[in-house]
Formats: sequence, C-alpha cells, structure tokens
Amino acid sequence: MKVTEIGERSFVERLCQRLTRRFGWDPRLKVGPGDDAAVVSVGDCLVVLTVDGQIEGVHFRRSWMPFYDLGWKAVAISISDLTSMGARPLCLLLSVALSGEETLEELDQLYDGAADACLRFSCLFVGGDTSKSGDGLWVVSTALGLVNGSFWTRSGGKDGDRLIVTGSLGEAAAGLLLLEKAVGTNNDPCVLRFRRPEPPADLLPLLRSFSLHAAIDISDGLVLDASRLAFSSGLEAVIDLPSVPLSKSLKEACRLLDHNPLPLALTGGEDYQLLMAVSASDADAVVTAITQFGGSATVIGSLRQGTPGAVIGRDQEGKPVRLSGGYQHF
Amino acid sequence: MKVTEIGERSFVERLCQRLTRRFGWDPRLKVGPGDDAAVVSVGDCLVVLTVDGQIEGVHFRRSWMPFYDLGWKAVAISISDLTSMGARPLCLLLSVALSGEETLEELDQLYDGAADACLRFSCLFVGGDTSKSGDGLWVVSTALGLVNGSFWTRSGGKDGDRLIVTGSLGEAAAGLLLLEKAVGTNNDPCVLRFRRPEPPADLLPLLRSFSLHAAIDISDGLVLDASRLAFSSGLEAVIDLPSVPLSKSLKEACRLLDHNPLPLALTGGEDYQLLMAVSASDADAVVTAITQFGGSATVIGSLRQGTPGAVIGRDQEGKPVRLSGGYQHF
Repeated sequence: MKVTEIGERSFVERLCQRLTRRFGWDPRLKVGPGDDAAVVSVGDCLVVLTVDGQIEGVHFRRSWMPFYDLGWKAVAISISDLTSMGARPLCLLLSVALSGEETLEELDQLYDGAADACLRFSCLFVGGDTSKSGDGLWVVSTALGLVNGSFWTRSGGKDGDRLIVTGSLGEAAAGLLLLEKAVGTNNDPCVLRFRRPEPPADLLPLLRSFSLHAAIDISDGLVLDASRLAFSSGLEAVIDLPSVPLSKSLKEACRLLDHNPLPLALTGGEDYQLLMAVSASDADAVVTAITQFGGSATVIGSLRQGTPGAVIGRDQEGKPVRLSGGYQHF
Repeated sequence: MKVTEIGERSFVERLCQRLTRRFGWDPRLKVGPGDDAAVVSVGDCLVVLTVDGQIEGVHFRRSWMPFYDLGWKAVAISISDLTSMGARPLCLLLSVALSGEETLEELDQLYDGAADACLRFSCLFVGGDTSKSGDGLWVVSTALGLVNGSFWTRSGGKDGDRLIVTGSLGEAAAGLLLLEKAVGTNNDPCVLRFRRPEPPADLLPLLRSFSLHAAIDISDGLVLDASRLAFSSGLEAVIDLPSVPLSKSLKEACRLLDHNPLPLALTGGEDYQLLMAVSASDADAVVTAITQFGGSATVIGSLRQGTPGAVIGRDQEGKPVRLSGGYQHF
C-alpha cells in the first residue's frame, strides 16, 4: 500500500506508534512523536524540539514568496510549534537546499528573514547546513525551546473544557488565494499573514500563569487541528460556528475573491494561531487576560464525550453539522 | 553573483560571518555556525546540535540505496558530527519529504534503518515531520548531543600537532563508484561502507581521556576536511601520503574499478571517520589506546605554520605536493 492510499493522518499515526514502541520506554523522553514537538529532559531542563520544512512547489512558489519572507516563515512555523507546547525559544538550525542558481543577494535576504524572525522571537540562530537540491529550493528549520516545569500537549483536554483560539483565522489561506488568483495587491494584510506568520509567542508568560489543559497550533486548519487535539484527548470537539473569529481583512479579501470566509477560517490552514483547551471556569479569565495584554482570543467551542476526534459544528440556530477538511499532504 | 560562481566554501564562510555578527555575542552560544555542530549552553548542560540532509539525485539514487540504508545513513552522518565535537548522542529528529508513491513497506524500512542506527549509537528517536516533496525523496536529520565540560572544535589545532585519522579512508567513495559503474557485488565491503557508515562514536569515552586540540569528521574527503581544520586553526596541514590508511577492501575494489586507491582516500569523501589534532607527545598514546580498544587509528601528518588552510602532501621520497579537491556542492 502506498502512502497516498493510506493518507497522511493514518500514515503518521502508524509511524508514531512504531517509534513509540521502540523509544517510548526511555524516562528522558517526556513527549515522543505525535505532538507538535518532542520534549526531552536534559539535566535539570526540559528541552522541546521541533522540525518543519518549507518546500518549493509544495509550500510555496518562488514567484509568490520573497526570499526574506521564506526565511521568516521557516522560523516562525517552528516557533509556533514551540509556543503550542508552552516553550520559550532557545535556538534554531536551518537546513537549506539550493539549485545553486540563486544569487548571493537572494540568499542574504533568505537568511536575513530567518535571522530577523529569530531576533523577533528571542531565538538564537546557531547553525545549519547548505546543500545542492535535486530540484527547487527548500528550507528545513529545527527549533529548540525550553519549558520550566510543565508543558502542554494535545492530549490533556477534559470533558467540558472550552476551546479558545488566539487571533483570527483564515487570513493566510485568503492570502494564498489572492496570490494564486493574482487578485488584490501584494500588500494585502492577508498576503502578509500568509508570508510572515506571527505565532502568539508573546502570550506565553501570560498563558503559563493559567492552567491550560491542552494546546495545539493551527497549521492545517481549525477543524483538522481541533480534531487532532480532541482525538489525543479522547473527546470530540464542538465548534460554535458564529464564534469563529473572522477579521475585517479576511472579509475584504473574500469580497475580492468572491469566496465565503468561514470555510477558509475552518480549513484553510497556515494560521499559526494557538488552540487551547481550558476549564470552563477559567475560559473567560484567559480571554480577558489576553485582551488586556493587547492580543485577541475567542471562546469558539468546547470538548465533550463522544467519538474521539470528531468535530461538530453548531450553526446560528444551534443545528449540528459534522465538519471535516484541512490540509493534508497525502 | 550566483552561489555556483562564488562556490560552496566561500558562500558558507560568508554566511557564517554574517550570522556570527548577529548572534555571536550571546553568552549561551559557545560554538556558532561554521563548525561540525553548534554548541549551546542549556542550564548546566552543553547541548551540541547538528543538521544534515540526504537528497535523492544529489546524495543518493534510489536504485543504489535501499530504504533501510538511507534511514541508517541519515542518522549516522549526524552522529558523526556529534562525535567530532566530542558529544555523546542524546536524541534525533527526522524530517522526511516523500513523493507519496512510496509504499508503507519502503517507509517502514526507512524508519527501521533510522531507528536501528539510533539504537546503535544510543540516541533517542524523538520525532520529526513528513511532507510531500516537490520531486524525489529527502531525509533531513537533526541530532542533539551532550558534552560534559569541554568539547572539540576545528580551531584548536597547534603548530607541531600530529594529525590522526581513525579507521581507513576511501572505501565509501569506492563503494559509490562500484554502484555507479555496476561493478562488483552489492555485498562489497566498500558498498556497505557507503550505505551504512559507522562513525567512531564508541571511541568517545576513550578519546575524551586525552587532550585533543581539534577534531573534524571526514565527510567531504581528507584533503578538504584537513584544510578546514587547518584553516580554522590558522595553520597549514602536511599529509604523509604513504601513511594514509588504505584497507584491503579498498585495494580490491580499486582493482575491479581499475582506479588508484589513494585519490579516493584523499578526496572521495563520505568516510565519516574522525580527523584529530593531538600534541606530538600524545599522538602515539592516542593511537595505541584506540588500537587496544579494538579500533584503528593512524598518524597521517601534522600541522605547522604556513598558509592557513593549505594542505601539503609528502610523497614516498618526502617531496612536497600541494593537495586540493574534495566534495563541494557548488
């Protein structure tokens, strides 16, 4: 059977089980394959590790993606994974494969974008490697973060928890559509969101003062990532559709695109916002604290007993609708 | 100017300077870009980090490289970088990009090879990511290791130091030629060496009992890596050509290939052996200790004042010959 036949999610679940059987027994391994990042104990510290690739023709096209932004984004998506585990960034490595036809100026921009993102998120750029690529350009970033004491995983959600999302959703997906369809301008806020994601790492000190039960970053769309969190927690997720935060920028882009904003917010992906499961009694306080800090957050639903990993939408009239979709490579 | 015009070595040196200017001031960063691995302090620990890619059509062809061996090799080359810094392996992440046409069996073999190499080198396999590739298959491994107290870099070599190399050289390059020319058998020891490198990580506890001045792993050929070590140490390297260790397997493969073994040992690359600079008074003791441990090591030359990074060969009659060559991507 081919990977395309079994599909990405089943393939990854199967792989994680195989690897966990072989390495999961080690007491130094606190979180193994299958979450946003791994957690390993190093002396008195808990180190959080994550890796992500940006591949030409898969994640981006060179004509849409300035080199600076590619460097920025490669770093930012790894910072997003660290944030979702509750880890502050420590350092980062960048593995870059090139055709060799790139100019020094283009590669300076790539590394400047990566270095600026590292500085933005208080992360040291400590090394990497360069190589010839068979075809196209790709950038793989590995980030290492630290947690003090506790960390968050996808699996800690409890029955009755509220689901809170930071920021607003769907803008990056709208930005990608604007680029694909050559609609609007290069300065559209949605295009910027697609090219230079800003994971809510600044919220970490504040969020760590609450007892979050579970967290995941929204990289493949709210529905798919809510499903992952719910599945890992053995629960189902309910999403109150009218609550899903849609920005003015998204609505304007969707007018240009003649597209409904809600599906982009639900399944578009590349939001790099945080989805958290918090006890019902804490939810309002978390939202208020984030707002007072200058950020934004919304209670968009809850977790409950049911089919693990199912995601149920509730429309304006409260009618349930089973949700699916999201970005999967295979 | 394009990367292919400036060349890999100059490009990487330029890049390391730019990054060191921006991040080198941080006291947590002990070794930044430009060595085999980065060293960062984490609490009371020194963490060593390295990343390496294996790219189809660049580092391997699928017809030559069984999936199991690809997984093994991706891990082993990262372990080699850790070894050259004096670090014992702690954990590893694997980033894999696939066409999607691979079968589950093939990918099981890939991950089994990686997992077995991790177990072989006492390294935890803690995570990674999978993605669709634009074209072909590639595997990027990031390894994290630990050093107690001191570590080795390329830059500590001293005037008069002896250069010691572990194992024998050129076999992997001969194995690659056997595969390229479809000469010999798939079980040739040189083919095995190409597919399943065995970095001398087991020697670490023994080597750490000596005072090594500098070390580098031989990935791009003895001459190029000796040049890197010598350049970083501000010295030139002299290599006593009759001393370069050539195995029986290499000589036999070279008979089949009608090829001179010495150039393969000097510039073939992918040896994943260790090149060390040791004081003249310690050199014999280091070689003896490695031999008594069941390994092999040879004094092949020395460091001296001269043109930094120059590599001078000395032939049977002691006549000097300027050496160059080795694997560079651009």
